[in-house]
Amino acid sequence: MTVEQIEALLADVAAGRTTPPAALERLRHLPFEDLQFARIDHHRALRQGHPEVVFCEGKTPEQILAICERLEAASGTFLGTRASEAVATRLAARFPRVVWNQLARTVHLPAADQPKRVSQTDTILVISAGTSDLPVAEEAAVVAEVFGHPVERLVDVGVAGLHRLLVATEQMRRARAVIVVAGMEGALPSVVGGMVSAPVIAVPTSVGYGASFGGLAALLAMLNSCAAGVTVVNIDNGFGAAAAASRICRA
Amino acid sequence: MTVEQIEALLADVAAGRTTPPAALERLRHLPFEDLQFARIDHHRALRQGHPEVVFCEGKTPEQILAICERLEAASGTFLGTRASEAVATRLAARFPRVVWNQLARTVHLPAADQPKRVSQTDTILVISAGTSDLPVAEEAAVVAEVFGHPVERLVDVGVAGLHRLLVATEQMRRARAVIVVAGMEGALPSVVGGMVSAPVIAVPTSVGYGASFGGLAALLAMLNSCAAGVTVVNIDNGFGAAAAASRICRA
Amino acid sequence: MTVEQIEALLADVAAGRTTPPAALERLRHLPFEDLQFARIDHHRALRQGHPEVVFCEGKTPEQILAICERLEAASGTFLGTRASEAVATRLAARFPRVVWNQLARTVHLPAADQPKRVSQTDTILVISAGTSDLPVAEEAAVVAEVFGHPVERLVDVGVAGLHRLLVATEQMRRARAVIVVAGMEGALPSVVGGMVSAPVIAVPTSVGYGASFGGLAALLAMLNSCAAGVTVVNIDNGFGAAAAASRICRA
Amino acid sequence: MTVEQIEALLADVAAGRTTPPAALERLRHLPFEDLQFARIDHHRALRQGHPEVVFCEGKTPEQILAICERLEAASGTFLGTRASEAVATRLAARFPRVVWNQLARTVHLPAADQPKRVSQTDTILVISAGTSDLPVAEEAAVVAEVFGHPVERLVDVGVAGLHRLLVATEQMRRARAVIVVAGMEGALPSVVGGMVSAPVIAVPTSVGYGASFGGLAALLAMLNSCAAGVTVVNIDNGFGAAAAASRICRA
Amino acid sequence: MTVEQIEALLADVAAGRTTPPAALERLRHLPFEDLQFARIDHHRALRQGHPEVVFCEGKTPEQILAICERLEAASGTFLGTRASEAVATRLAARFPRVVWNQLARTVHLPAADQPKRVSQTDTILVISAGTSDLPVAEEAAVVAEVFGHPVERLVDVGVAGLHRLLVATEQMRRARAVIVVAGMEGALPSVVGGMVSAPVIAVPTSVGYGASFGGLAALLAMLNSCAAGVTVVNIDNGFGAAAAASRICRA
Amino acid sequence: MTVEQIEALLADVAAGRTTPPAALERLRHLPFEDLQFARIDHHRALRQGHPEVVFCEGKTPEQILAICERLEAASGTFLGTRASEAVATRLAARFPRVVWNQLARTVHLPAADQPKRVSQTDTILVISAGTSDLPVAEEAAVVAEVFGHPVERLVDVGVAGLHRLLVATEQMRRARAVIVVAGMEGALPSVVGGMVSAPVIAVPTSVGYGASFGGLAALLAMLNSCAAGVTVVNIDNGFGAAAAASRICRA
Amino acid sequence: MTVEQIEALLADVAAGRTTPPAALERLRHLPFEDLQFARIDHHRALRQGHPEVVFCEGKTPEQILAICERLEAASGTFLGTRASEAVATRLAARFPRVVWNQLARTVHLPAADQPKRVSQTDTILVISAGTSDLPVAEEAAVVAEVFGHPVERLVDVGVAGLHRLLVATEQMRRARAVIVVAGMEGALPSVVGGMVSAPVIAVPTSVGYGASFGGLAALLAMLNSCAAGVTVVNIDNGFGAAAAASRICRA
Amino acid sequence: MTVEQIEALLADVAAGRTTPPAALERLRHLPFEDLQFARIDHHRALRQGHPEVVFCEGKTPEQILAICERLEAASGTFLGTRASEAVATRLAARFPRVVWNQLARTVHLPAADQPKRVSQTDTILVISAGTSDLPVAEEAAVVAEVFGHPVERLVDVGVAGLHRLLVATEQMRRARAVIVVAGMEGALPSVVGGMVSAPVIAVPTSVGYGASFGGLAALLAMLNSCAAGVTVVNIDNGFGAAAAASRICRA
Repeated sequence: MTVEQIEALLADVAAGRTTPPAALERLRHLPFEDLQFARIDHHRALRQGHPEVVFCEGKTPEQILAICERLEAASGTFLGTRASEAVATRLAARFPRVVWNQLARTVHLPAADQPKRVSQTDTILVISAGTSDLPVAEEAAVVAEVFGHPVERLVDVGVAGLHRLLVATEQMRRARAVIVVAGMEGALPSVVGGMVSAPVIAVPTSVGYGASFGGLAALLAMLNSCAAGVTVVNIDNGFGAAAAASRICRA
Repeated sequence: MTVEQIEALLADVAAGRTTPPAALERLRHLPFEDLQFARIDHHRALRQGHPEVVFCEGKTPEQILAICERLEAASGTFLGTRASEAVATRLAARFPRVVWNQLARTVHLPAADQPKRVSQTDTILVISAGTSDLPVAEEAAVVAEVFGHPVERLVDVGVAGLHRLLVATEQMRRARAVIVVAGMEGALPSVVGGMVSAPVIAVPTSVGYGASFGGLAALLAMLNSCAAGVTVVNIDNGFGAAAAASRICRA
Repeated sequence: MTVEQIEALLADVAAGRTTPPAALERLRHLPFEDLQFARIDHHRALRQGHPEVVFCEGKTPEQILAICERLEAASGTFLGTRASEAVATRLAARFPRVVWNQLARTVHLPAADQPKRVSQTDTILVISAGTSDLPVAEEAAVVAEVFGHPVERLVDVGVAGLHRLLVATEQMRRARAVIVVAGMEGALPSVVGGMVSAPVIAVPTSVGYGASFGGLAALLAMLNSCAAGVTVVNIDNGFGAAAAASRICRA
Repeated sequence: MTVEQIEALLADVAAGRTTPPAALERLRHLPFEDLQFARIDHHRALRQGHPEVVFCEGKTPEQILAICERLEAASGTFLGTRASEAVATRLAARFPRVVWNQLARTVHLPAADQPKRVSQTDTILVISAGTSDLPVAEEAAVVAEVFGHPVERLVDVGVAGLHRLLVATEQMRRARAVIVVAGMEGALPSVVGGMVSAPVIAVPTSVGYGASFGGLAALLAMLNSCAAGVTVVNIDNGFGAAAAASRICRA
Repeated sequence: MTVEQIEALLADVAAGRTTPPAALERLRHLPFEDLQFARIDHHRALRQGHPEVVFCEGKTPEQILAICERLEAASGTFLGTRASEAVATRLAARFPRVVWNQLARTVHLPAADQPKRVSQTDTILVISAGTSDLPVAEEAAVVAEVFGHPVERLVDVGVAGLHRLLVATEQMRRARAVIVVAGMEGALPSVVGGMVSAPVIAVPTSVGYGASFGGLAALLAMLNSCAAGVTVVNIDNGFGAAAAASRICRA
Repeated sequence: MTVEQIEALLADVAAGRTTPPAALERLRHLPFEDLQFARIDHHRALRQGHPEVVFCEGKTPEQILAICERLEAASGTFLGTRASEAVATRLAARFPRVVWNQLARTVHLPAADQPKRVSQTDTILVISAGTSDLPVAEEAAVVAEVFGHPVERLVDVGVAGLHRLLVATEQMRRARAVIVVAGMEGALPSVVGGMVSAPVIAVPTSVGYGASFGGLAALLAMLNSCAAGVTVVNIDNGFGAAAAASRICRA
Repeated sequence: MTVEQIEALLADVAAGRTTPPAALERLRHLPFEDLQFARIDHHRALRQGHPEVVFCEGKTPEQILAICERLEAASGTFLGTRASEAVATRLAARFPRVVWNQLARTVHLPAADQPKRVSQTDTILVISAGTSDLPVAEEAAVVAEVFGHPVERLVDVGVAGLHRLLVATEQMRRARAVIVVAGMEGALPSVVGGMVSAPVIAVPTSVGYGASFGGLAALLAMLNSCAAGVTVVNIDNGFGAAAAASRICRA
Repeated sequence: MTVEQIEALLADVAAGRTTPPAALERLRHLPFEDLQFARIDHHRALRQGHPEVVFCEGKTPEQILAICERLEAASGTFLGTRASEAVATRLAARFPRVVWNQLARTVHLPAADQPKRVSQTDTILVISAGTSDLPVAEEAAVVAEVFGHPVERLVDVGVAGLHRLLVATEQMRRARAVIVVAGMEGALPSVVGGMVSAPVIAVPTSVGYGASFGGLAALLAMLNSCAAGVTVVNIDNGFGAAAAASRICRA
C-alpha cells in the first residue's frame, strides 16, 4: 500500500465514501512492509549512490548476466564480486564498458555520469600482510572505490618484517578507516591497532595451510586482538570490510 | 634516548664537541622507540582523555589496587572491567569516589574535573537481545560513556519478537554507531544491519547452553551476517565493542 | 497505537475533526509494531492458554520472583524451567500453590480455573533412553502437560536392549508426536523414527563423558539420522521439544 | 515366513496334520521380522502413497537405474534426490515419463494414476533466505508435492531485508507446517518462528564461505533459536525437512 | 505373549476352539518382543555370570543404593564404577561386605559363592603410560577381574622411556588381550600394537592440559595408530575396555 | 650386529682371542635391534601366514608395483588396499594372477599354494548399514579372508528398519567376531552390541553429508556406544577392523 | 640381565664353562632393556645434572612428597611444577630448604653443592606479552635456571604497543635462545622471530576468554607464524619451553 | 632517510648550516625504519648466506619466475618450496642451472661460488615415520642443506616397528638437532625425544585419513608429547623445521 493509496483511502473516509470501520479493516491488514520496502529503496537511491552488489561465486554466467541486466536497467550500473574470467567475458559481451579487475575478481559497470564522491578527504587505507592476501585486499579496495571513497593501499607489510610497516606510520595515521588483511597467524591488525586511533577492520584470509584450517587461525587471532577496538569480518570477506568502512565514512 | 638527549647531542655537534661521524654512530643505534613511546603517551593525553582500562578478571584485588593507584597518580582517573564485588570493595576502601556498576561489572574513578565530551550529538546505541545479555551490553555502554560519548540503550529486542525492534527504527537510525549484543543464535545484528546505515558492531555473548558452545554459535552467525558491513568482536567483549565505537565517533 | 486509537482517528476524519493529511501523518509514523505486539499478545491469550515460560538458569531467585509476579498478575499462572531448589523455595514462599517438579526442574503455578485441554486424544509420547536422561525428558513432559496436551512416558529403552523398546510398539504408534530424549550415541531417534509415522523430535542430552563432548556426539548422530523426517532441537532442550510438539498438536 | 505360510501352518494344526508342539517350534523361530517387514510395506502402500526415495549422490547412473527399475516394478513410481544431469538422462532413456527438476536435483516418475492428495488444505510453506538456498528449498518443495501435500513457496526473504518477509505474514500464518531454508547466519527460522504458531522446520544450508564452515554456522544458529519450538534437520537436507513436514501433515 | 500363551493358542486351534484366521490375527500382533526379552535375560544368566554394572557418576548415593539393592536381590552381587567416597560409604552401611577400590573408583559386592573363572590362562594385561592414568587403568583391571578373568598390570611405561616397556616384552606377548591406557599424546598403543599379536584395546585418558583438549589428542592419535588392528574406546572408559577384553576372552 | 657376528665374538672369547671385558664392551653397544628385527620377521612368517599390506592411496602405480614386486619375491603373495583401477591394471600387467576387487578396492596376489586357514569355525561377520557403506565393509571382508578367516556378510541392515537386522539374530550370535560398518548416525554397533556377546568392532564411514563432517558424527556415536565393550577404529578403516578381528580369532 | 651377569657369562665362556652356542642362546634373549635403562640413567647423571621434574597438578601433597623424597634420596635435589600452596607447605615441612616460587608455581630443593653452570654466556631470554602470561613465563624462567642456564626476562611487551619491544632489540639479539610467552592472539613470536636469528620457542597461554578457546587461538597463530623457524609447545607449557631451550643451549 | 642523508644533516649542523633545533625536528620524524630495513638486509647478507625462500604454492609460474629473477639479480641464487613440475619447467627454461627436487618439491639455483658451510660437524638429522611422509622430510632436508648444514636422513622408522628406530640410536645421538616428521598418530617425536638430548623439532604431516583430520591428530599428539622439550611446527611445514634447526645450529 503506497502513501498515495493511504491518502486516497483517507480522502474516501473524509468524503464519506468509506466508513471508518471499513477503512480500519483495510488499514489493519495494510502491507506496511510495502511502504517500508519503498522507503528503503528510496533511501538507498538517495543516500548510497551505488547498486546492490552481486556475489558471483556459485552462480552461472547466465544467472549473473540476468541479475546484472536488471540492476543496469534500474540504476545504470552494477558491481559483482568473486567473478571468474568466464563471468567477466560473458558480461563484457553484453556490456562493453564493464571493468574486470582480475586480481580483485570484481566486475563493475560504472555509471554513465561520474558518481559524486562521498568524501574527498576521508581515506580508507587497505593494508595487506602478504602477496597472497592481495586478492582479498584488492576486493576491499575496489569495492570501497566503487562506493565512492578515496582509497590507499599498503602491501606486503607482514609482522615478521616490522620495519616495512613502521615506515608507513604517517600514512596509517591519516586514514579515516583502516582495513587490515592478513592470513596465516593474523597478527597484523593487532600491530596496526596499536599504532592508529582510527577504526581498524580486520579481514582474516584463508591464506595458509595445515593448522591455518582455512583461515580459522587468523580469524581467532583477530578476534582475540589485544589492541582495543579492532573489529573482524568473515574470512576472505574483503567486500564486507569495504562495506563496514563505507558505513564509517558515510555519516 | 630522550628528546633532551638528542638535543644535547646536536648541540655538541654544533659546538664541535662531537664530530658528525661520532654523532651518526650514536644515532644509528638510537633507541628510537623511546621517542616513539613518549610520543604515543602524549598523543593519548591530548586526544583520548581517558585512562588505560584494567581487565580485572584473573587478577587479585591487591594487584588491581596497585595498578589503579598508578593510573590514578598519573591521570586522576581509572576504569576497570570484569570487576567482582571483592575488587570493588577493595578499591572503594582506597578511593571513596569510585563507582561500581554491578551489572556492567565496571569500576570507575571519575576525573575530578568533568572530562570534555567527544561529541554531544554522535550517539552510540547499545542494543541487547535478551535480559541475560545485559551485563555485556552494560559493559559496552559504561565504557562508551566513560570514553566521553552519549549513549542510548535498547534492551530485550530479540528477533523472535520483531515488533519490539521495529518500533525503535527511528532511534536506531539516529545513532552514529550501533553496538548489537546477542547470545544464542546471534541473529540480531543481521536484522539491525539491514535497518540502519550506520556502522554495526556485533558482540556475541556466551549466553546459551548446549550447542551454543560458549558463544561460538552466535559468533559464527555474526561473522556470516548477510547484512553487508557488520563487524564482530570477541565473545562477551563489550569493552572491545565500545572501544571500536569510540574509534568511529572520535574522528 | 491500539485498534481503539485508530478507530478514534478514523472517526475524527469521518467527522471532519481531522483532515486526511493530518491523519496520514499520524498513520505514517504509526507504531504498527504496537498493533503487532498487541495482536500477538491477544493471539496468545486466545490460542495458547499458557503463560510465557521463564528460563531460570543464570537468574537470581529475586529476579525470577519479579518476573513471575508480573506473569501471575497478567495471566494468573506461570511456568519456569531449569529451576533450582532455591528458586522453588523462594517462589513457594510467595505463591503457596506453586508446584516444583524436582526431577524436571520446573516450577509451575497452575491457573485457578482448569485450562481447557488442547485435545483429549492427540497424545505426546516422551521416550528416554537412559535414567540419566530423565531430567530432560521430564522437562519436556511437564511443559507439554502445562501446555494442555495429554502426555505419555516411556523410559529406559536404550538401543542396546532393543526388546524394551519393541514391546512398546503399539504405544508408540498411537502418539500424535513423539519426543525422543537420548545422550551418549543418540541412536534412539533413528530406531523410533523407523517404527512410527508420527513426527519425531529428537533431543540430544549432555549425558555422557569423554568423546560425548557435552552432548555433541548425540546431537550430530541425531542430525544424521537415517530415518527420514526426524528433527532435532538443542542439547538438553526438553522445553524446546515440548514447544515443537505443541505446535504440531495445536492445529 | 509369509502370512500365507502362517495360514497354511494354522490350517495344518486345525486339520491335525501338524501337532501344536511342532507348530510352536516353527513359530518360536519364526522370522517375525518378515511379517513386520511385510506389514510395514503394506502400511506404506496404504498410508503414504509414495515410493521409497533414492539418494542418488555417490551412486553411478547404472546403480540408480537398477534401483529405480525395481521400485517402478513394485509401485509404478519412484523419486530420487541429488540427481545429476547424467542420472536424469540415463533414467529418461529408460522411463520417458520421468521428470527431472534441475534446480531441485530431483527425478520423479509419477504414478500412472493420479495419487490421492493427503490433504487439500494443509499447506506446507517453504521459505528460503537467499537465491543460493533455492536448490535445497526446491528439493523440499518437490518432495513434499510428490508426497501428496499442497506446497507454497516464499523466496529471497533474508533477515537483512525484513520488509520482504513481513509482507508475507498472512501467507505464513495459513500454513500447516513451515520449512525455513537458510545458509550464512541462519537467522531466518528464529524470525519466522516468532511470527507463526505452526511447526517450523529449519534447514541450514552450506551456502556461505569462510567461517560458515560448510553450514555449521547456520546449523548452530538454528539449534540455538530463541523462538521456542523450532526444530532442525541436517545441513542441506531439504528432503528430510519435507519428510518431517509430511509426518506432521499426515495424521 | 509367552510361550505358554502360544501353546494354549495352538491347542485351541487343534481343538477347533479357535479358527486359523482368528489365530493368525492374534499371532500377527504378537508381542514377539516379550519372547525376545525373556530369551536375552536367560542368556545373560547362563552365559555371563556377572551382574549389570552401575555407572555411579551423576547419581545420588540414594539412587545408587536403590539400584544396587535390586541387583543384589536378583543376583547376590553388584558392581559400580565411578563411585565417590560418599557412594562407597552409603553402600558399605547397607552391605558390609562391599569392596571399595579408591583408586579405581569401583564398588563391588562379591557373590557369596566364589564365581567360576572364565579361564585360568587367558590373561588380560592392563598397561598404563603414566601414574596419572592409573585410575582408568585400575578401573579396567578391577572390572576384568570381577568379570572372571586373570589380570596382570604393567604401569608407568610411557613412550619417552621405551626401555621400561621393552623389558616387559615377554609379559606382553603372553596376554590373550592387552588394554593400553594413555593420556597426553596417546602413543603407547601404537608401540604395543607393534610388539604383540594379541588384540590391543586402546583407552585414551583425559590426562593432560592445553591442547590435549580433555583427551581428544590421545583419542585421535589412537584412532590413527599405524599399528594395524588397534581398536579404541571412549576417553577414560576403563570399564568399556574391560568389557571388550571380556568379550574377546569369553568365547 | 648379526647372530653370526655374535657367534664369532663368543668363539673369540672361548679361544682367548678376545678378553671378556673387551667382549662386554662390544656387547654393551650391540645393535640388539637387528636381532629383534630378524626375530619379528621370522615370527611373522611362522605365525601370520600373510604378507604385509600396502596402502595404495597416494602412491603412484609405479611405486606400488615396486613394493609389490619386493613382497612377491619375499613371500610369493601380496595384498593392497585402496587400489584404483589404474593400480590394478598396472599390477595385472606384471602379475596376471592378481585379483582386483573393484568394490573393496583391494588387489591381491594369492600364494601359489593354498594358505592354511587360521580356523574353519571362527567366523568373522561383517555387517553394513547402508549400500554406500559397502566399499568399507567389503575391504574388511576381503582382508579378513586373505588373512585366513571364514567371513560372512550381512548388508543393508540400517537401524531405521530394524526388522532386517532382527531376522539375522542367529547368524550374528554364531560369529566369533563382528565388524559393524556404518556411516551417518553410526547407531548400528550399539544395536548389534546389545544382541551378541562376541567382540564388536565398529567402523565409522564417511558416508553422509553436512553435519556428518566426513564421518565424525558416526565416529563419536560409536565411541559413546551404550553397549558395553564395543570398540572403534578410524573412519573408513575396513582394513584395521579386519586386522583387529584377525588378532581376536588368531589366538 | 645386568652388566655383572654378562661379565660372568663371558668369563664362563672364556673359562670353557659355557660353550659359545649356549652363551649365544642366553644373549639372544637377553633383557637388553636393562642395559639400556642403566645407560640412560647414567647418561642423565653425567650430562644433565638436574633431577627429574614432577608435574604436581592432579597429585595429592602426600603423593608429591613421596616422589620428592625418592628424588632427594637419589640426587639430593628435586624440582616440581604446577605446585599449589598446599603442596609447597607440605614439602617445606619435610625439606626446610625447599624454595616455593608462588608466581611460577614451582617448588625446588637446590642441591647442597652449587651445580655447575651449563654455560656462563648462553643466555635464555624469556619474553612475555601481558602480565597475565607471567606465571607461565616465570615457570619457564625458573626451570631454565634450575637446569643451569643464565636467564633474562622481558615482560609486558605486547604487540599492540610495539615500542616497548623495539627498545629491547639488542637484548633480544644477545640471547642464545628466546622463549616467547603470549596468550590472546599470540602474535608476539612472529614479531620476535622477525627480529632475531636465534631459535624462538613460542608458548601459547590460556590467557583470554571467549574465542580464545582456552589458548587455541594463540596456539594456532603461533603454528602459522610467518616468521620462519618459530617452533611451538603446548598451551601453558612453560616447563616444556625451558626444556627445549635447555636442549638447544646444552650441546 | 639514508645513512648518507643523516651524514649530510650532521655535517650541516657541524658547519652551522642547520641549527640543532631544526635538525632535531627532522630527526624526530626520521623514517628510522629505512635504516632498520637496510641493516636487516645487510645482516642477512653477512650472517645467513642464503636467499629468501619462495613459497610457490598458489602462485603462477610467471609470478614465481618474476620473484626468482629479482632474487637471482640480488644474490645470484634462490630457493623455492612447494614447486610443481610446471614451476620447475618454467624456471629451468630461464635458469638452466636450476635444480628441481621432485620429491621435496623444491627448486634451487645454487650460487656460482660454493657457499661456505655453516659448520662441518653440526649435523641436522631428519627422521621420517613412513614413506608417505617423505616429501615433507625431504623438503626439510633440502632446505637445511641449502642453508649450509650437513644433513643426515633416517627413513621409514614408524613406532609400530621400533627395532628399525632402535638400531639408529647412535646416529640419532650424534646429531646437533633432530627433525622428526610423522603423520597419522604422530608418536615418533615422543620416542625420539626420549632417546636423545639434542633439540627435537616435530613436524606433523597431513598423511592419514578419517580422524587424522588433515594432520590435526598428529599435531595434537606432538604438542602433548610426554618427552620434555619437543617443539612443534605447522602441519607439513618441512621448511619451517629446517629454518628452526638452522637457527639452532647457526650460533
